[in-house]
Formats: sequence, C-alpha cells, structure tokens
Amino acid sequence: MVAAMRLATLVGPELKQLLREDPESVRDLLDEIHPEDVADFLSELEPEDAALLMRELPAEDAAPIFERLGEVEQEEIAEQLGAEKVAALASEMEADDRVDFIEALSDELGEQVLETLSRVDPEAAEEVREIQKYPEKSAGHLMTTGYVSVAPTATVADAIHAIRVHTEDANETVYAVYVLDSAEKLQGLVPVTELLLAERTTPVASIKLDVDRTVHPLEDQEDVAKLMSKYDLNAVPVLGDEGEFLGIITIDDVIDVLTEEQNEDVQRLGAVEPLDLPYFQTSFVEFIRKRGFWLAALFIGEFFTQTALRHYEEITEAVRGMLYYVPLLISAGGNSGSQSSTLVIRGLAVGEISLSDWWRVLAREAVMGVVLGAGIGLLAVGRVLMYPDQDLRFAITVGISVVGIVVTGCTVGAMLPMIMRRIGADPATSSTPFIASLVDVLGIIVFVQVARVVMAEALAAAGVH
Amino acid sequence: MVAAMRLATLVGPELKQLLREDPESVRDLLDEIHPEDVADFLSELEPEDAALLMRELPAEDAAPIFERLGEVEQEEIAEQLGAEKVAALASEMEADDRVDFIEALSDELGEQVLETLSRVDPEAAEEVREIQKYPEKSAGHLMTTGYVSVAPTATVADAIHAIRVHTEDANETVYAVYVLDSAEKLQGLVPVTELLLAERTTPVASIKLDVDRTVHPLEDQEDVAKLMSKYDLNAVPVLGDEGEFLGIITIDDVIDVLTEEQNEDVQRLGAVEPLDLPYFQTSFVEFIRKRGFWLAALFIGEFFTQTALRHYEEITEAVRGMLYYVPLLISAGGNSGSQSSTLVIRGLAVGEISLSDWWRVLAREAVMGVVLGAGIGLLAVGRVLMYPDQDLRFAITVGISVVGIVVTGCTVGAMLPMIMRRIGADPATSSTPFIASLVDVLGIIVFVQVARVVMAEALAAAGVH
Repeated sequence: MVAAMRLATLVGPELKQLLREDPESVRDLLDEIHPEDVADFLSELEPEDAALLMRELPAEDAAPIFERLGEVEQEEIAEQLGAEKVAALASEMEADDRVDFIEALSDELGEQVLETLSRVDPEAAEEVREIQKYPEKSAGHLMTTGYVSVAPTATVADAIHAIRVHTEDANETVYAVYVLDSAEKLQGLVPVTELLLAERTTPVASIKLDVDRTVHPLEDQEDVAKLMSKYDLNAVPVLGDEGEFLGIITIDDVIDVLTEEQNEDVQRLGAVEPLDLPYFQTSFVEFIRKRGFWLAALFIGEFFTQTALRHYEEITEAVRGMLYYVPLLISAGGNSGSQSSTLVIRGLAVGEISLSDWWRVLAREAVMGVVLGAGIGLLAVGRVLMYPDQDLRFAITVGISVVGIVVTGCTVGAMLPMIMRRIGADPATSSTPFIASLVDVLGIIVFVQVARVVMAEALAAAGVH
Repeated sequence: MVAAMRLATLVGPELKQLLREDPESVRDLLDEIHPEDVADFLSELEPEDAALLMRELPAEDAAPIFERLGEVEQEEIAEQLGAEKVAALASEMEADDRVDFIEALSDELGEQVLETLSRVDPEAAEEVREIQKYPEKSAGHLMTTGYVSVAPTATVADAIHAIRVHTEDANETVYAVYVLDSAEKLQGLVPVTELLLAERTTPVASIKLDVDRTVHPLEDQEDVAKLMSKYDLNAVPVLGDEGEFLGIITIDDVIDVLTEEQNEDVQRLGAVEPLDLPYFQTSFVEFIRKRGFWLAALFIGEFFTQTALRHYEEITEAVRGMLYYVPLLISAGGNSGSQSSTLVIRGLAVGEISLSDWWRVLAREAVMGVVLGAGIGLLAVGRVLMYPDQDLRFAITVGISVVGIVVTGCTVGAMLPMIMRRIGADPATSSTPFIASLVDVLGIIVFVQVARVVMAEALAAAGVH
C-alpha cells in the first residue's frame, strides 16, 4: 500500500531522474506492488515514460504487468520498446495471454515480434500459431497450451515433479494434472488436492478421475463460459476432432468472457454495435460508424409513422387535438415493448425461456398487456378529461387505444426476440429501440382504428367515413 | 451420458414402479450422473415424484443435487420431504449453500429446519445464523465458513491433514490453507500447489504468503466480484471489524453474482424492476407491480409531450403537416439518447468512465450529436422533399431540428446517468426509456423553435408571431 502510494507520486520527470540515479530502488518499489496495480499506474503515464520503466525490469517481472494492460496501452508501450524486448516479454507469458498481447500490437510490430520469437523461443512462437488457427471468440482461441500433463504410467511423485517444472516459469494456478496417453488422448485428470492427499508412490492411474466435460476448439466462448459456470469447473480441457488434447480453458479467462459478453449484450440493447475498446479509446470515426448505422436504420423505420399519420389525415384532422396525443400514446407501446423484450432476451440468454415456450410467453404477455394497459389507460382518460373542452367519446378513444397499444407493445416486444433467435440471429440485435419503432407505427394504426369506431358519429358529422 | 439418457426416459409412474421394485438400480443410475444433470431432470418432474427419488438417496448424495435446484424447486420438493429429511440434507451442504437453501424455503419450514438442525448438527445451524447476520448481497452473506486453516506453528503435514479432514465432508475445491493465530487473525495463506511442492516437515510459517486482498463482510457483493476478477483471485478472505477471520468467498459464487448483477442491470435498462425469480416462476402480480410502476411513471413524464404540442398549437396548425413529423423527429432523439446512455452506463459500471470525466464526455457526445444529427438530418430532408407539396423551408426546418434533437439526445442521454451516480443512485435506474421521455419533450420544443426562426415569414403571413 505504502509502496503503491509512493509510486503514484512519481510523475514523468521525477521518474526519469529516479531511474537514472537509482534504478535499483525503482525495481524494489515495483516488486512490492501487485502487477495489476503497477499496470494501473503505467496506464496513467505517457507511453515513453512507461516504456522507460518497463525497460528497467527483467522480462519475467515485466510480463505479468504487461498482460494486465489494456490493448491500447500494450500497443503504445510496445512501440517504444522495440521487437526484441517485446519478444522477450511475450516469451515469459502464458500462451493465451501471449496471443492476446501479440494481437494487440500493430500488424507490423506483431509480425516482427513473432519472427523474433521464432528465433529466441520457437516453442512459444509455435504455441501462438496453434492458438491463432482458431477464430476469435472460439474455445480454441481462449485456451492456453500451458497445462501440466503426465503419462498414464506416472506416479504421484512424477505428477508433482511435472507441476514443479511447470510452475517454475509460469504463475497461473494449477488446478489439476492431466493424464495423456502417447497419442495425446485424455485418460483422466488428478486434482491437485488429490495429489496432496495421496502417497507419492501411488500410480496416477489409480486415483485419476474421468473427465465428463470437455469442449471442442470451435465452440463459442460464451457457451464454454456457461458450461463452466453451470458445473462449477475451474478448468475445462479442449479436445480436437480426433479427441486429441489441445489445451485447457481456466476460470479466470471465463470471467473476462462473461464481462465482455455482458458489455456486448447491453450495447446491442442500446442499439450500439459492440465496441472493441473502452469508451475513451474508441475513435470518433468508429463511434459514428457503430452508432450511425443503427440510428439511420431506426430513423428510416420511423418514416412510417409520418406515412401513417398522413394516410389517416382525414380522421386526425376531424378529431380536434388527436395529433397532440400521438407521441404520448405511442410511447406507452414503446415502453411496454422495451420491458417485454428485455425480459425475453434475458430469459433466452440465461436459458429460462426456450423457443418452444413461445405460446406460453405470448399468452402471458398478452394478458399482462391488458392489465397494464387498463391501468395506464385510466391515467390517459384522466388526462384527457382534465381539459374541459375534450368530450367523453374522445377520452374513451384514448383509453381503449392505450390498452390496444400496450398489448401490441408487450406481444411484439416478446415475440420479436424469439423470432430473431429462431432465424439464427442474436435476439439482442432486435434491440429495444427497433421494437419501439415498429410499435410506434402499429400504435398510430390502433389509435386511428379505435377512433374510427368509437367516434363514428362525430366523424360522420364531419363528413369522414 | 447413457445413464443420463436412461434417466430422462423415466416418467412419473415408471419411476415409482422402478423405485418400488429395484431402488438399488435407481441409486446406481443417479450415482453415474453429474448432480447438475440430476437437478435438471428433477426440475422436470412433479415435486412429489422428485421427492420420492430424493428420499431414496442418502443425504450426502442428495445434498449436492439439491444445492443445484432453483429456489422454487427447492421449496416445492422440500415441502414434500418434511423438516427432518430437509435438515439432514442441509447438514451435508457447505455453509453458503445451506443458507441459500434455507432461505429458499417457506418461512415456516425454514424455521422448523433450522430448529431440527440445531438439534442434529448444532455447528451447521450456528454457521447459518452467523451468515444470516449479514445483509443480502453483502460479502458476509456470500461467504462460506467452510475453509481450511492451521495455526502458525503447523507444518506442511499438519496442513495436509487439515485438508484431508475438511474434504471428507465437503466437496468444494480447496485453493489454499489459511494460517490463523489464536485470536483468529490472518497471518497468511499457503496455496495448495505450494504445499505439494514443499517437504512435509517444513513449517507453514516459512512458506506462507502475505494476503494483500481481503474484504469486509458488509462490502457489496458486486465490488467483491470486481476485485476477484481484477486480481484473478480464486478465493478472498472476509475479515471482520477487528481483523478477525470470518470466512472466504470462492470464485464459483462470484460467477453467480456476476450473472445475477448482469440480469439486474439489463432489466433496469429495460425499465423493469429486477426480478428475483426466473421469468416463468415470477408471479403475474409481481410482474404487474415491477413493470406497472415504471410504465406509469414514464407515461406521466410523457404527458408533457401533449402539453407542449397544445402549447404551440398556433405554430403547429399554421405549418401544414408539421405534426405528422413529430413522432419521427422525436424518435431520433430517443434513439440517440439510448445509445449515449447505454455507453455511459456501461462505462461507469466497468470503470472506464469516472464522474470527473463529465466534461470530456459532454464535449464528445455534443460533437458526436452534431455529426450523427447531420447525417440523419439529410435523410429527413430527403424524406420531406419526396412529397412535391412540401416547401424547401419546411425541409430545412426538419433538417436543422433533427441536428438539434440528436445533440439534445446525446448530451442528455450521457449526462443523466452521471447525475444519477453523482447523487448516489444507480445510473442504470435512469433507464433509457426515461431518457427517451425527457428527450421527447425537449425534441418538440426544438422543432417548434426552429420552425419559428426558419419559417418566420410564412408564420407571419399566417398571422402567427
């Protein structure tokens, strides 16, 4: 804590001075602080100053700090360090972090680093190429090839030795040792706790557990996260087409996936294409692109409100004040539609609702729409009658319309995400504003049709049929 | 897999017959299947049939299955089993799961179970009372008191013995052994892997690691989840006011918290009060309550659109067709406001944006509003000019209004969540539909004011000033 506070008081020029005069003390200082906190500190510095500091540290100490930087900072600081130093850093990382790191770099620097790595640590470079074969967001891309394995003939002592060798140059937690035969087929696993409780001479074959749950490298990372969360797994093995062991996915990576997917879902709900980078690091042009498309699509969808109003011109002009109520009434549809779609999108995402439930959902939302609509409708009738110049028939028109509009909102809002899922699209993409646009147009139609029936006499008197 | 398929073919009557004729084979069948899958199967059965099955199993086998059932199923099946059997089940659970289980029961049954538990397993009952002291969603409520600890004078062999004793009646993963002095103060921890690599005679004091990160029992569970995810922790100790060790929170519980909090955030964004139960298990009345309040609040907010339109009656009647464009134009404000608020709410939630950034966010969103508004405005102008009877000045009015409305949407949408955070409310509660309502009213004002300036001549000719 004290060390972290002392670090935080260093700014550019002082840092440079301290590094020149007493680099040893800076190293000691950094040694006392969690790499996560050093990474936070580096993010605040200019890339040049951060690079100065990273150059001072041996690669094995700098690597865990680098892993924890954001993509933009990784790239900016790496540019300052040059390919040689960056390759040394990458060589010290776990395979999955190494891939993320190299992918954060500019294409040019990334290639240089991979080339240098092939020379200084060919195994590490090979691991990167293995993982990069798999598409982004797949299990294969998420996995690490840094696991501990032994042959089926090994003893507990052998397994412990394998862990010792592994942990010498890696600091990821080891949860289990995997038992692999000569064809790299998975024979079982031994949790670390079991190793601890067994005699050293015990053959691993006699205490190994069967592995029930494995994933294919092309599986979606979100499905992997759900599987691990459902079965409370710390790690899950990734097996190839022939059942050959490729690597493991650990729980800490899955937490990052959950956070990332959550971000994407929320952004889609808000009609923004998911961002790859944090808010301030996303470029202006990128924002315009990710927001502009949806805004324009929604706006064009909303054109139809104007078309509908113009189409019903005769009626809306004959009923005095009717147009003033349009925004109010259609908003009730949009809001109830938002609610229903949110509930159904989440229900589908967490598996509480499946497609075969569509009929139950529809029935439930329709009844809910009637009840909610009746409540909101009463508010609307009260509002109309607050004006002494509005007649009762118009108030009734508004009230009934609200019921119809809220039922429309609830049912369309609930069904659209299910239809999206049915045709294989992400339900969150039928984002709530899109539903609002659709419901707006339908709301106008409901309002006019109700007016046509309830106010038939007045309309006839005005010459409208 | 085969066992799971055989199980799935059993339905009520056959299950009863099989249980009568050959209970042994049912037990064997269940033994081969992951408790999670048995729980899924039980959820599909009638509570009576599920209870029949659970009664057949010894408590230690039934407990892990029960833990994995949803709250509603836990209660329904427990009602069938009676307090004695339920207490036996609860006694076999980890402390945190036991608390969740007892809280899922009806108040009456819950009390009976706790009473029975005090008799048959007083320690387990005491643990429940300890945890229940802390408010829901606090670290104290989330923690388990099922941890492994040794005295500072212990050796590695002692620590291994402690793990052995612990794992005999618990199947949660052990990540580390905590070193506690006689006053229950935390002296450090030894990860399981370290125990494995050390000599059995080594004193734990010489290999223990300092514990940098701990939490207070009253801390919010979401903050605990963020801490553990940031520092990649498998478990975090919970320390009381005096620094005394109370328990630990493990990574699997944190994953559940992340999912739960995500659900709540998304529901708030959709203007639904967060639900406690899955969609189909939430009662109709509960839904009406959770949705009705927000719908009514938003509807009343939207009253002002009608007030504004009526207020500007002279102008909107003088400009032919103006009212037809109102829903279209104000939707652009609502949608851009949704986008901005989504981005800012997420940015605040994950810490990418802090309150002190408000000025940067405002400037950015304002400029973004101008650019996006210009694009959408061109679409709007094109739309107006598609009608041969609309004049150019009206098209210009619509175009300029769209720019103003989108800027309003972006800035209000971005600032409102920050204001909510500033006054200590949850930014997600300033849910996007609420922003839409506010922006709708502002949009009407912008439209009319722009018309007043751009169409001044035409309005003057119509006698409006």
